[in-house]
Amino acid sequence: MTDVKHMKWWGWGLDGVGFHHEDKPGFAPFVHKVIGLDLHTAKVVSEPSFGAMTIPKSISPTAFTAALTGIVGPQYVTTDDMDRVVHTFGKSLRDLVRVRANQISRAPDVVVYPGTEAEVQAIVDAAIAADVVIIPFGGGSNIAGSLEPLATEERVVLSLDLGRLNKLIDIDAESGLARIQAGALGPDLEEQLGAKGWTLGHFPDSFTHSTLGGWVATRSSGMQSDKYGDIADIAKGLHVVRPGGTLVIRPIPSSSTGPSVREMIIGSEGRLGVITEVTVQVHRVPAKRDVFAYFFPTWDDGIRAMQAIAESDAAPSITRISDARETGFSLATAKESKGLSKFLAGTVLPTIMKSKKWDLEQICLSFIGYEGGEAHAKLQKRLVDRIVKAHGGMGVGTGPGILYDQKKFDTPYLRDFLLDRGAAGDVSESAMPWSRITPLHDAVIVAAEKAFDEIGIQGWIMSHLSHSYHSGACLYFTFAFVFGKNPLKEYDTVKSAIQQAFIDNGGSLSHHHGVGLEHRAWLDQDISPEGAAVVKGLFAVTDPNSNFNPGKIIAQ
Amino acid sequence: MTDVKHMKWWGWGLDGVGFHHEDKPGFAPFVHKVIGLDLHTAKVVSEPSFGAMTIPKSISPTAFTAALTGIVGPQYVTTDDMDRVVHTFGKSLRDLVRVRANQISRAPDVVVYPGTEAEVQAIVDAAIAADVVIIPFGGGSNIAGSLEPLATEERVVLSLDLGRLNKLIDIDAESGLARIQAGALGPDLEEQLGAKGWTLGHFPDSFTHSTLGGWVATRSSGMQSDKYGDIADIAKGLHVVRPGGTLVIRPIPSSSTGPSVREMIIGSEGRLGVITEVTVQVHRVPAKRDVFAYFFPTWDDGIRAMQAIAESDAAPSITRISDARETGFSLATAKESKGLSKFLAGTVLPTIMKSKKWDLEQICLSFIGYEGGEAHAKLQKRLVDRIVKAHGGMGVGTGPGILYDQKKFDTPYLRDFLLDRGAAGDVSESAMPWSRITPLHDAVIVAAEKAFDEIGIQGWIMSHLSHSYHSGACLYFTFAFVFGKNPLKEYDTVKSAIQQAFIDNGGSLSHHHGVGLEHRAWLDQDISPEGAAVVKGLFAVTDPNSNFNPGKIIAQ
Repeated sequence: MTDVKHMKWWGWGLDGVGFHHEDKPGFAPFVHKVIGLDLHTAKVVSEPSFGAMTIPKSISPTAFTAALTGIVGPQYVTTDDMDRVVHTFGKSLRDLVRVRANQISRAPDVVVYPGTEAEVQAIVDAAIAADVVIIPFGGGSNIAGSLEPLATEERVVLSLDLGRLNKLIDIDAESGLARIQAGALGPDLEEQLGAKGWTLGHFPDSFTHSTLGGWVATRSSGMQSDKYGDIADIAKGLHVVRPGGTLVIRPIPSSSTGPSVREMIIGSEGRLGVITEVTVQVHRVPAKRDVFAYFFPTWDDGIRAMQAIAESDAAPSITRISDARETGFSLATAKESKGLSKFLAGTVLPTIMKSKKWDLEQICLSFIGYEGGEAHAKLQKRLVDRIVKAHGGMGVGTGPGILYDQKKFDTPYLRDFLLDRGAAGDVSESAMPWSRITPLHDAVIVAAEKAFDEIGIQGWIMSHLSHSYHSGACLYFTFAFVFGKNPLKEYDTVKSAIQQAFIDNGGSLSHHHGVGLEHRAWLDQDISPEGAAVVKGLFAVTDPNSNFNPGKIIAQ
Repeated sequence: MTDVKHMKWWGWGLDGVGFHHEDKPGFAPFVHKVIGLDLHTAKVVSEPSFGAMTIPKSISPTAFTAALTGIVGPQYVTTDDMDRVVHTFGKSLRDLVRVRANQISRAPDVVVYPGTEAEVQAIVDAAIAADVVIIPFGGGSNIAGSLEPLATEERVVLSLDLGRLNKLIDIDAESGLARIQAGALGPDLEEQLGAKGWTLGHFPDSFTHSTLGGWVATRSSGMQSDKYGDIADIAKGLHVVRPGGTLVIRPIPSSSTGPSVREMIIGSEGRLGVITEVTVQVHRVPAKRDVFAYFFPTWDDGIRAMQAIAESDAAPSITRISDARETGFSLATAKESKGLSKFLAGTVLPTIMKSKKWDLEQICLSFIGYEGGEAHAKLQKRLVDRIVKAHGGMGVGTGPGILYDQKKFDTPYLRDFLLDRGAAGDVSESAMPWSRITPLHDAVIVAAEKAFDEIGIQGWIMSHLSHSYHSGACLYFTFAFVFGKNPLKEYDTVKSAIQQAFIDNGGSLSHHHGVGLEHRAWLDQDISPEGAAVVKGLFAVTDPNSNFNPGKIIAQ
């Protein structure tokens, strides 16, 4: 009907693409060891049957559906069940568990695909006039519960899919600014920019299935954000369709125009209107781009090195270090005869370990990236190498770095693989000052293990530092366990324990995945009750009847 | 009574400090040439008589004043006329003209100096309970009309002076974060940080008489912001006293916690509460800090070089270039036998000019700064020098740079000097994409000259690029003219023409001086009516009775 492509309704990515471990001999033993799941005997649940799904009937009145049809044309309005299910959830673990378990308590009643900003305006105005709930939809990759209609919603719910608004409008080459429609997926926009020699430099894990508008709406970060900035730094101009008119923030590099409306829209998850266009700062595709791998004897040494790099005059594009647990996972699950595993399988690492007297249980794997002109990239590496050395670390070349680079967008598929076999695998991340990294890291592991004990399962948690700033960093945790009898409750126990440990140890409730329904319980604790009251007031005054994605970020 | 020091009630800075031109032989001829003011014959108006001032009586009821006294003690509450006048205005040209002309239509009724955050909370709660207007006061250097009570205000007006809250609370050395009370003046906080080897790196022109809280409340930038960031980048954590409780934003390097409350407080000019504490990112005092001077044959060459530097891998701490007009002013008014003037007075420049075939009317003076480790500063200079050369520019060493550095905080005194002699001298600045720099620059000059013509005076306007960003820059304009019969009206004609040219040519209404009353007429045009409505709604919902600095940024 439309040429807007969606991920499969019951999981991540496209049909026929998935994680496999045939070429990773260490994977199955590792999984068996850490969460007790035997991949050779595990029952594999195949794709659920769409025909067996119980989908709430659409309550969109004929008059409203007709009004939408009048705006965009009949081929761009649908009340088809498959379309509605695709637009019901994002791709959080809770979303996937529910959709696989036929637990859809509320789906959007109608889905619309506008082709212009004027059409978005007409749709919003018609929806507001009819007291319809509007939920903007980009790539559908959200993992914070920002997309689902509230189960209790009695009004008509409209999913406003931005997928047709995916064009690069123009580039101001003199300023390094590109006007791009909000519905452009990562590959779409990089392709359009790349054709003219530019890059946005924004590469979240969800890159292939998330949109520019979605990044802005959830305050996204990417893998090279150390160099290019988080989306809040990148997005300079905005168009946001509001009832009766479009809010326009012009692309100004920095201004002192009162409280920042730009920074209110960023992270607003649809609650302030529909983002239709973003003017982003773009960069010439760099001459050089390398990711090097390093080892540190311990997590503490590695963290101190990352902090020293952030404080120094060096400016790498990526600073990432895995803790000993995640390093163990990476070493065990690397592909045979490639990059890292080749290096490990040989005598190189064992010999080094022995001569350095390192403990294999303690070592940490780090990736550091360099981008820019040849001389710049080379110099940054020299500056970083000096700091790494001073902290007892050791460079091991680009081999593993290339591996990292190639696989970076594949991790979400691993979660589906585990789900197929009755296990949870999920992520949660937090940003904090450098002084809180170690206490928070340790506290989260203790909290997760306590939660695993509480529900009586064998669980696993590991972490890496994913982004560095002058005054702190982001820790990104991955955890897994085999489901018992009550998957959502078990998940909630573990996830809540981790979130609470973030907050209790000086971290944010999220670093780049937004708030949605998933994290809103911690908003008060993150930004204080007075701060949360300001956010609540902002939504109340700008959306008095709660038509824009109600309940997300903060309860009504 | 308190040990909080204020600037003199009728002008900038401290009594006995002022601009003089005895050692600048070119100054008087230049002023005569450009605005027709003969400094040898001009009548000099001396300090106005405080006794002759008509000051509206305080309407603070005894009960309220007593309540304040109960909170902070009698020595920290005053209804004294001098204190009230000192807290009536900032130091904008309009402020100074009015105070000198005995035009105070409304002054705060009572001034309070709290010594702790708890006292601020008690004061705010008492004021809200009594429906009193609260205007927070830092150094009083504001030039956007952010401090004055509305002339029509019938309620009691309280000036809440943060001057006693001027301490560095602590430094998290591992994270590079310092907790500092909001009332700390620039020199106070740099001294306290410097004693421990740290610097904030924030040096606005107002540095000596402005406070950390004031910088946050008005979205300030400093001279080295290219390196250290604007205050919005620097301020990571905040305490804001609101009715009934204190809003706390913890120091998180970056987060995705919904619309940014931090970015609502920044630039809020007292309308969302009283900022009492800021956690800022700080840096080790750099080993090297140099400011070098350069000349470019034309403004276009210079701007293109600045843009190329911003786009490159180089990271200077200052990028500044004066247009040909401001360069003419700098050359004419340099001190005798020092730095630049020595260089000019000799045969160096004339010889260069001749050999390069440069036009003295077209050349532009630039200052570029380098900070960091020795090697870093040296390398940045090498990278910049290469770009300067490619754009036809030429380095002339550190001599003029040192001069610039020494005199940087003295410019506000020049305005008082002109005012004493019946002339206006003022500044206005805007940020814009690189592609808009030249059109905006030219349009502002045309608009100002048209305004000068309209009021029938000989006026002068000149500009420099003061801050660079990846996607744009800030142009800082200085203008002057001899007052006719109606100073405020004439000033308004010129200032309005400049502001409108900013907006019409893709610039912001302000880059680092805030909105206040001075710029609020352009808010709709800057951030769109829909954006302004969001700001208005935010204030309405968080301050339903308009107790917090009403009318600033946007009318009620």
